Amino acid sequence: MNKQLLFVKRPVGEVDASTWTLETNPIPKIEDGQLLIKQHYISLDPAMRGWMNNSKSYIEPMAIGSVMRAGSVGEVIASKNPKFKVGEYLAGTGGVQQYTSTDGKGYYPVDPKMAPLPTYIGTLGMPGMTAYFGITEVGKIKEGDTVLVSGAAGAVGSVVGQVAKIKGCKVVGIAGGPEKCTYVVDELGFDACIDYKNENVASRFKEECTKGIDVYFDNVGGEILDIALSRLKMHARIVICGAISQYNNKTAIKGPSNYLALLVSRATMQGMVVFDYANRYKEGAMQLGQWMAQGKLKTREDIYEGIQNFPETFQRLFSGDKMGKLVLKVIED
Amino acid sequence: MNKQLLFVKRPVGEVDASTWTLETNPIPKIEDGQLLIKQHYISLDPAMRGWMNNSKSYIEPMAIGSVMRAGSVGEVIASKNPKFKVGEYLAGTGGVQQYTSTDGKGYYPVDPKMAPLPTYIGTLGMPGMTAYFGITEVGKIKEGDTVLVSGAAGAVGSVVGQVAKIKGCKVVGIAGGPEKCTYVVDELGFDACIDYKNENVASRFKEECTKGIDVYFDNVGGEILDIALSRLKMHARIVICGAISQYNNKTAIKGPSNYLALLVSRATMQGMVVFDYANRYKEGAMQLGQWMAQGKLKTREDIYEGIQNFPETFQRLFSGDKMGKLVLKVIED
Repeated sequence: MNKQLLFVKRPVGEVDASTWTLETNPIPKIEDGQLLIKQHYISLDPAMRGWMNNSKSYIEPMAIGSVMRAGSVGEVIASKNPKFKVGEYLAGTGGVQQYTSTDGKGYYPVDPKMAPLPTYIGTLGMPGMTAYFGITEVGKIKEGDTVLVSGAAGAVGSVVGQVAKIKGCKVVGIAGGPEKCTYVVDELGFDACIDYKNENVASRFKEECTKGIDVYFDNVGGEILDIALSRLKMHARIVICGAISQYNNKTAIKGPSNYLALLVSRATMQGMVVFDYANRYKEGAMQLGQWMAQGKLKTREDIYEGIQNFPETFQRLFSGDKMGKLVLKVIED
Repeated sequence: MNKQLLFVKRPVGEVDASTWTLETNPIPKIEDGQLLIKQHYISLDPAMRGWMNNSKSYIEPMAIGSVMRAGSVGEVIASKNPKFKVGEYLAGTGGVQQYTSTDGKGYYPVDPKMAPLPTYIGTLGMPGMTAYFGITEVGKIKEGDTVLVSGAAGAVGSVVGQVAKIKGCKVVGIAGGPEKCTYVVDELGFDACIDYKNENVASRFKEECTKGIDVYFDNVGGEILDIALSRLKMHARIVICGAISQYNNKTAIKGPSNYLALLVSRATMQGMVVFDYANRYKEGAMQLGQWMAQGKLKTREDIYEGIQNFPETFQRLFSGDKMGKLVLKVIED
């Protein structure tokens, strides 16, 4: 049987468990051209909150009654598609369910001998690609730049900062709590990390970035975006990747009051969506994989178990009660 | 004697006449290397409001007790600087006064036979350069783009829209009142103009830009910036030139709530300051002058008289009670 988490109620503001229903249905039968994947791990990402809203975005809103959309990695256990073989491992958008049938569109092979499966939905998956292309192509980092990254201990931010360090930048992170900040500095090698839950971000930021910043990679929005805007160097770049602080708002989100700093500093604020780099994922994954193999890039997943625990695991994205990439194991041993 | 308007009180919120004092002082004597300019016209610009604030910006805040900073155009009446001859006309930042002594730095010659003097502080001066380089270099317009311009009847916006039309764009303006909107469409040749004082901007915008916009040239900020963000085409560009709706705020300015549209549309919001194009002013002025001569680019100044009327004329920038470039004649006949 196939346990599936259905999206049944569009949330307003904070999400609660009534958003989803767990159903058990027969494992789907596949037709010609299709394959059946037994899913091992599901990716939990802040972007999921946006997919639940019924508003224009970079992707269709989820339909009520559909399987909860999610990135995933799993094994092909049946195939009527010549492009995919039984026993192969694939990553794609399989949703929060234990089995998925697909025509294979959007799935790509991954090698469990090269890296643990969860890494393929983390640093070697969408979060890693977002970080890599976001900081290099949109952030346009160059040696000697001072880079600020929010969500520094998270799946995207941790890679952003490490890539910037590899490229010769000074990197300051922002994360919640001393444990994360220690991890970001001691394990990931950032030059500093500001604890937004316990420190005055504006004054620590002033101390750490005395001459301002060249790049801010924004995962959070809200007050921290305004603080970053207050200390831009000339021609600075702000990469708008997300705004987790605003995703649960019931009213209009808080726009950046300091946006006229863009004028003062002739700076640029640019939005990015990883899909635009789809034809370069291979290049990104190879580069990140090489750095991992060389020990220059560290990756960490925080793995929970049981598809029934999805709703409570999802909350960790917003409470920050996780360390690194949040993953749910849905395969039952 | 030299009538001078001194900046004597830093305003909070709306500016009133107590901000300045009119003094009459002797005409300055010049030293070696200096020249004396008899000023004819003074430029009034929204940017002046920002110069009054004591905060970090793209230019030093004005000092209390200094002559009110302003662009100006006038005639050299004495010179101990071999680079400038008596009888020559110069544009520069001469301040709100009838005579100014200077070493000539930042001044450049203008030809009153080619265009009326006020035009050199309008379309052939800073506003024109701002428009030209802003819409071409920052807005990166190309043929077929849909361009939205706020402050469409103003010194900058009117040139922005006309340049965009010349470059083959569809151009929609936003201006205050039916008289301005008629001028923008019938005289300047914009495709449409939305009257923000009498129409529902969001719904008119939806009608006029059914497929969204490629470029928004923002002179006003506030609600209109948010409306523009709501209908961006992919890879749209927003040029942040000013935010006149917010300049008199006593509290934090309103940031754009819809800024995450930058992410959805992979769009860019970039600030500009005309000074960055100083080494290309000649190119800009020649191009705009050529279009004026060809009848493709229309220009209009709204000229008031008397240095003592500066405070009341200044208010017209914010009330919108003017048509085209606001100019004050300070020379007495």
